[in-house]
Amino acid sequence: MAELIKAIARLAEEHKATIMIGRTHGQHALPITFGLKMAVYAKEMLRHYRRLQQIKEEVAVGKMSGAVGTGAAFGEKFFEVQDFVMKELGLKAELPATQIVGRDRYIAMLSLLANVATSLEKFATEIRNLQRNEIAEVEEYFEKKQVGSSTMPHKRNPITCEQICGLARVIRSNLLPAWENAIQWHERDLCNSSAERFIIPHALILTDWILYKMKQVFSSLRVYPEKMAENIEISKGLIFTEAIMIKLVEKGMSRQEAHELMRQCAMEAKEKGVHLKEILKEKKEIVELLDDIDELFNPGNYIGKAPELVEKTLKEIAEELR
Amino acid sequence: MAELIKAIARLAEEHKATIMIGRTHGQHALPITFGLKMAVYAKEMLRHYRRLQQIKEEVAVGKMSGAVGTGAAFGEKFFEVQDFVMKELGLKAELPATQIVGRDRYIAMLSLLANVATSLEKFATEIRNLQRNEIAEVEEYFEKKQVGSSTMPHKRNPITCEQICGLARVIRSNLLPAWENAIQWHERDLCNSSAERFIIPHALILTDWILYKMKQVFSSLRVYPEKMAENIEISKGLIFTEAIMIKLVEKGMSRQEAHELMRQCAMEAKEKGVHLKEILKEKKEIVELLDDIDELFNPGNYIGKAPELVEKTLKEIAEELR
Amino acid sequence: MAELIKAIARLAEEHKATIMIGRTHGQHALPITFGLKMAVYAKEMLRHYRRLQQIKEEVAVGKMSGAVGTGAAFGEKFFEVQDFVMKELGLKAELPATQIVGRDRYIAMLSLLANVATSLEKFATEIRNLQRNEIAEVEEYFEKKQVGSSTMPHKRNPITCEQICGLARVIRSNLLPAWENAIQWHERDLCNSSAERFIIPHALILTDWILYKMKQVFSSLRVYPEKMAENIEISKGLIFTEAIMIKLVEKGMSRQEAHELMRQCAMEAKEKGVHLKEILKEKKEIVELLDDIDELFNPGNYIGKAPELVEKTLKEIAEELR
Amino acid sequence: MAELIKAIARLAEEHKATIMIGRTHGQHALPITFGLKMAVYAKEMLRHYRRLQQIKEEVAVGKMSGAVGTGAAFGEKFFEVQDFVMKELGLKAELPATQIVGRDRYIAMLSLLANVATSLEKFATEIRNLQRNEIAEVEEYFEKKQVGSSTMPHKRNPITCEQICGLARVIRSNLLPAWENAIQWHERDLCNSSAERFIIPHALILTDWILYKMKQVFSSLRVYPEKMAENIEISKGLIFTEAIMIKLVEKGMSRQEAHELMRQCAMEAKEKGVHLKEILKEKKEIVELLDDIDELFNPGNYIGKAPELVEKTLKEIAEELR
Repeated sequence: MAELIKAIARLAEEHKATIMIGRTHGQHALPITFGLKMAVYAKEMLRHYRRLQQIKEEVAVGKMSGAVGTGAAFGEKFFEVQDFVMKELGLKAELPATQIVGRDRYIAMLSLLANVATSLEKFATEIRNLQRNEIAEVEEYFEKKQVGSSTMPHKRNPITCEQICGLARVIRSNLLPAWENAIQWHERDLCNSSAERFIIPHALILTDWILYKMKQVFSSLRVYPEKMAENIEISKGLIFTEAIMIKLVEKGMSRQEAHELMRQCAMEAKEKGVHLKEILKEKKEIVELLDDIDELFNPGNYIGKAPELVEKTLKEIAEELR
Repeated sequence: MAELIKAIARLAEEHKATIMIGRTHGQHALPITFGLKMAVYAKEMLRHYRRLQQIKEEVAVGKMSGAVGTGAAFGEKFFEVQDFVMKELGLKAELPATQIVGRDRYIAMLSLLANVATSLEKFATEIRNLQRNEIAEVEEYFEKKQVGSSTMPHKRNPITCEQICGLARVIRSNLLPAWENAIQWHERDLCNSSAERFIIPHALILTDWILYKMKQVFSSLRVYPEKMAENIEISKGLIFTEAIMIKLVEKGMSRQEAHELMRQCAMEAKEKGVHLKEILKEKKEIVELLDDIDELFNPGNYIGKAPELVEKTLKEIAEELR
Repeated sequence: MAELIKAIARLAEEHKATIMIGRTHGQHALPITFGLKMAVYAKEMLRHYRRLQQIKEEVAVGKMSGAVGTGAAFGEKFFEVQDFVMKELGLKAELPATQIVGRDRYIAMLSLLANVATSLEKFATEIRNLQRNEIAEVEEYFEKKQVGSSTMPHKRNPITCEQICGLARVIRSNLLPAWENAIQWHERDLCNSSAERFIIPHALILTDWILYKMKQVFSSLRVYPEKMAENIEISKGLIFTEAIMIKLVEKGMSRQEAHELMRQCAMEAKEKGVHLKEILKEKKEIVELLDDIDELFNPGNYIGKAPELVEKTLKEIAEELR
Repeated sequence: MAELIKAIARLAEEHKATIMIGRTHGQHALPITFGLKMAVYAKEMLRHYRRLQQIKEEVAVGKMSGAVGTGAAFGEKFFEVQDFVMKELGLKAELPATQIVGRDRYIAMLSLLANVATSLEKFATEIRNLQRNEIAEVEEYFEKKQVGSSTMPHKRNPITCEQICGLARVIRSNLLPAWENAIQWHERDLCNSSAERFIIPHALILTDWILYKMKQVFSSLRVYPEKMAENIEISKGLIFTEAIMIKLVEKGMSRQEAHELMRQCAMEAKEKGVHLKEILKEKKEIVELLDDIDELFNPGNYIGKAPELVEKTLKEIAEELR
């Protein structure tokens, strides 16, 4: 997990000022930087990293208090004996216990693994989306040999990300039996046993595996800043309508007037299929107030504190992961 | 459900020959028609429609055989009395029953609703993907007033499809308590009662709602065939590499030679950033064998039996839904 | 599954008149027969058996229509070729398909397996409950050697039933990834692949296994009718209060009077800790109306149509399973 | 939650030395005290209480950084403005964010609620089991009026515990949509919105409700120590076989000889249906070594450190809940 965080953090650092479109509802919204997107992911993983430290404490617990938890078989030496054995095993003693350790502990662990897997499925889904032919802003690394396929040379399938998505779903599903297993009768029933032999190793091994694969993906991810810059232009300037309206208000136009004016310009641009800036340059009332119209359409003016947010995040990560 | 199937079928009919790119792994594969995509969906819903008829039979069952299912309180007249009451209610009698009707019946119903909801989430996800600015092949209908937003005129959010996705997840989740409720102790415990008051109405009402919303979406869906045609060109002819190689083999070239030749051409096109046809036209060995190179890149040649598959499907649907 | 149904049916036949207490809320309600309990289970499995026949039809489906479902690669011969191959494989053709067969089919299959597993967990839970030392009405078969344990000779752990419960939970959990896998992008994504390699074999193999183990449990179940008869007496006649009240009304007492009288008798019996019949025999107004008071407490009078319900069910099963 | 812990702790205190049989596999194992059972529950809830403090921190987070998380609309004052607003709201700022706060936070919260609900379902299931007519060791409080039912005076249905079980299942199911909601596209999609309106309030309100109901159940639980003492005798001394064998070894008998001897005695007691102590008293080799045979069957000798475990737990709880 730490290595994955570092791999994402490296992308965040490298691309903290690489401008791309931010998307909501799958639609172009406003510019962000690719580094900011990565910083959000790195921070999310850092939260999981912190939870993982807590969970280790929670599950590294054992017991040796006999068939029903009274320690009767050990007589006066029970606490001493149990403490000795637990120390040998590197565990804390469950006090009090029944025949078994509390299953709420395993639920907590499997809940965390499900949460981690979900984050990884989100990241993998993002890459799958950004790798679409129509977007093409990032790409899973392809071996030269893979590239060389003659019959389908256009296909660059994000198969590692797809595998991560599928396995994340399997990991999550392991939590269900853990819940039902925890509803133990009396000092224990055995129903948990057959199920736990599946769910605990599967959840742990598969989470480990997709963390490893995700790290590989981010470590070797191909990023295409030119394509990111190109995609911002798809809306032909319309994404800046609101920002320009605010500019007009700052320059003295009434809010209502600015709103109506920009609405008309946007409509006109859309109908004519031309860039919004072409429309604005023809409007006297706009040209009078705003002198450098081209500069208004520079996406770099709209990334706010993205680079600073990245730096803050990287600093926090560096301190915690040393 | 029938109305939704009809709405999808209408799109299938209208667009049975509307060519678009088929995508696998989120990547351009080979051409299909939009009608074929819709026919696949209509047929999937037809399967649900058939399952729904069976489920109605399964859950329209009741019982009046007393507190533990023996019918003792009704004496000799038990079967007669129970049959009379069930007939009045339009139900079949559960024979034999405990205090309650078998919960496997409700599991079957909620499993089907979960299955239906999952199909709808798939359809809604597809529209959300095809509505992306970079793809823009279809669009949820927008009221004129919505379109008129001045500040974000570029945003056409597929909010109905997003709502369907979210609610589909809620519908599916209702199956979990149904499973656990079914593990009744003896002739019944009451644990199912508090849970069923949530899960049964929620699953039924929400499924009804998203079927209705999905029908609205398909009934008023905007389809952009020109954009579909445009998107096919994104790969600059590379999607046809395999088909052209087969053509060369048909014309007498050895398979190995054809394969190597096309691999080189595809690489060259990609490196130069030009359309594959430009490369092919310069290769003597190709021009000699294939006379109309432009025609090789006509996607209409690669839709196979798509229109016929649509017609077959529509006929099957028409017969069953009358 | 058929063998399991037969094993349960044999118990139903053998014990169609074996009286035991019916329990609701874990509390004694009214008498049933052990055969009726088994008949309810056998019928529930028969419903699964019917569903299984339908599901076989649903999933025995294949396709050979190319990378996006158009059949383009097969030219005019597509339908012919596909039909030929499917016939060879013993499958029906999916018409229309994308790159893959509809995942709603696998959801339907895994939903049924989850439903079956839930029934088995219910049966196994029932045996675990009835095998409690305090109830001891049935018992999983124990090898002589197991019995001979010297240190814990009192323990007869229902370990096979416990194993069935645990594995049933694992089986159910496999449905979750199947839902998410079905939300395929476009003509297919690959996310289902890694997950289906786990969930489909696991669900099928484990269901087969617990069906087999459950059959073993029912085939060799030890049933203790004497203990069943003994347990009915735990409430010292109180379970018959309502039935006796109805008797008094039949004999001419007003309903209100009979209700109040029986309430008082029941309270008195409970307070004194004696059998209700002892109280009734001392009440003049009761002795005058009801001549054979002991017979009123014969549980055999209260099993209604239980044996007939068993016979009807067994006949239905015999006809379907031949 | 704190009040529930206190209610359970009071039972633990009161019954720290109330002897009952410990059960594994639903079978009698060795004695425990009812207080120890309660202490295990109280400690499990204390773990949830600690987790709840952490989760409050995790979810009490907000953001005001604009549509895509850059804070661009606030210019240079972004951090200042966001901090001011968050302080007013009593939240911490999510740094960095997209359009929304990280959904891993809500998954963590709903995972905890599911874990809590599962513990409550375990407690409620235990009471349902201990309240069976055949066990009758504890009982949900019944209003005098309820008790006065004339027709079914024997029924004391644990309906509050049954309600808790049903609702716990509903609470758990809310986690599923939370997982899928978290797989947000880009800077957010809206799919989470419709689902979260169900799952977040439902999970919170229902967890609050069942905590409240569970507290009521434990606060007014009727405990029957005499019945607990009586139930220990069901096995007629067989549960002490192992302990007596150890005693014989301590007194000088070889382990193998003691084992075989006790095995024979246990078999004999079981076959004759008499108490094991009657058999032992007739064996010369046993009477010679063990002088007070009746005392060997005093369950009070086998509760080990149960009372001390209770006290340690109560001390820990008192310190944390003040």
